[in-house]
Amino acid sequence: MVSNEVNQYIEKIIPARSEQVLKIEQYAKLHNVPIMELTGMETLLSYVRLKKPKRILEVGTAIGYSAIRMALACQTAEIISIERDEERYNIAKENVESFHLENRITLLFGDANELQKQVENYAPYDFIFIDAAKGQYQNFFDHYSSMLSPDGIIVTDNVLFRGYVAEESGLESRRLRSLVKKIRSFNEYIMQHPDYQSSILPVGDGMMVSIRNS
Amino acid sequence: MVSNEVNQYIEKIIPARSEQVLKIEQYAKLHNVPIMELTGMETLLSYVRLKKPKRILEVGTAIGYSAIRMALACQTAEIISIERDEERYNIAKENVESFHLENRITLLFGDANELQKQVENYAPYDFIFIDAAKGQYQNFFDHYSSMLSPDGIIVTDNVLFRGYVAEESGLESRRLRSLVKKIRSFNEYIMQHPDYQSSILPVGDGMMVSIRNS
Repeated sequence: MVSNEVNQYIEKIIPARSEQVLKIEQYAKLHNVPIMELTGMETLLSYVRLKKPKRILEVGTAIGYSAIRMALACQTAEIISIERDEERYNIAKENVESFHLENRITLLFGDANELQKQVENYAPYDFIFIDAAKGQYQNFFDHYSSMLSPDGIIVTDNVLFRGYVAEESGLESRRLRSLVKKIRSFNEYIMQHPDYQSSILPVGDGMMVSIRNS
Repeated sequence: MVSNEVNQYIEKIIPARSEQVLKIEQYAKLHNVPIMELTGMETLLSYVRLKKPKRILEVGTAIGYSAIRMALACQTAEIISIERDEERYNIAKENVESFHLENRITLLFGDANELQKQVENYAPYDFIFIDAAKGQYQNFFDHYSSMLSPDGIIVTDNVLFRGYVAEESGLESRRLRSLVKKIRSFNEYIMQHPDYQSSILPVGDGMMVSIRNS
């Protein structure tokens, strides 16, 4: 969605990441694990740094990249993160341990639609980051927004889904069309939600930032 | 920088603005006054809503559009805003009064390079928004960042300048090349600044978000 030149320029002047962080990025690239692209990550981190959350809920750990980046960006944050893919969950566990962050990042293995009770044990959250199965966003939002503290923020990634969400036509597969329809309906629902003020940022794969009315 | 389709999609689902706000947007369009585009504005407002600043400094009022939007987004914020163009300053004054916001928005007429003393009377600021002469960004940042509170945020607009900043070549006019060089040097300076963690967002005309290390 953003031109390559612009993305490359931004990535070129982003401050250097540690060897250890780069190692996770390289692993993801090599094994086709979708992690956030850098400009999206830096945008997410700007909200984390501004909010300085006490407790973050992440829906969709993948291999722990974003949880680790958020923990490093805010030294006082505790993070609860859910992953339903066992292999990724195990790699995330290793990555978190290699950063000695296991005291601040708690990984839960299971489907985010079924883990509400466990997740509630750690509530309230003042920051929720949703980056998981896009077809389930409405469910995730409804399950977990009740655990948000009154002045909390919810960031939802991939709400423009490679720009497909903005295209009027041209999607050939029925599966894709159905997914795009779900994301659109989620976006409209959130933009009109009376309890939140939301903005869609055309950054990375599209980021919805929802701030609870206090 | 962002595709038209994506921008149009986002603008389509942004919640409706009041007649009064639309009137300022229409005036700006008609009279070629550069005001922030909607996706950029919504991104700025997301930081305002999250931060809930007590006092905002704006460098570059233009006709008051962004000051008014920020004041409406955060009912407790006071805004000090500087404009050096007398005609725009006068229109901004009218606009602020038409919203009955003159008790929360203070407009100062003059060059931001010469108003430090007056601006300091209202310091500290916990939110600074720089949206003025791009060739002066380094000066503005240096003049006013000392008035930022310890947990403050500085947002600087237009740091990608229509994407020119990311282009390797192709700028024909010397004036443009010199301006692009200045913005690049500002961007690198800020990204490496030891007192701030900064991100460049490829939104609108490019937005730098700098959060002070606390």
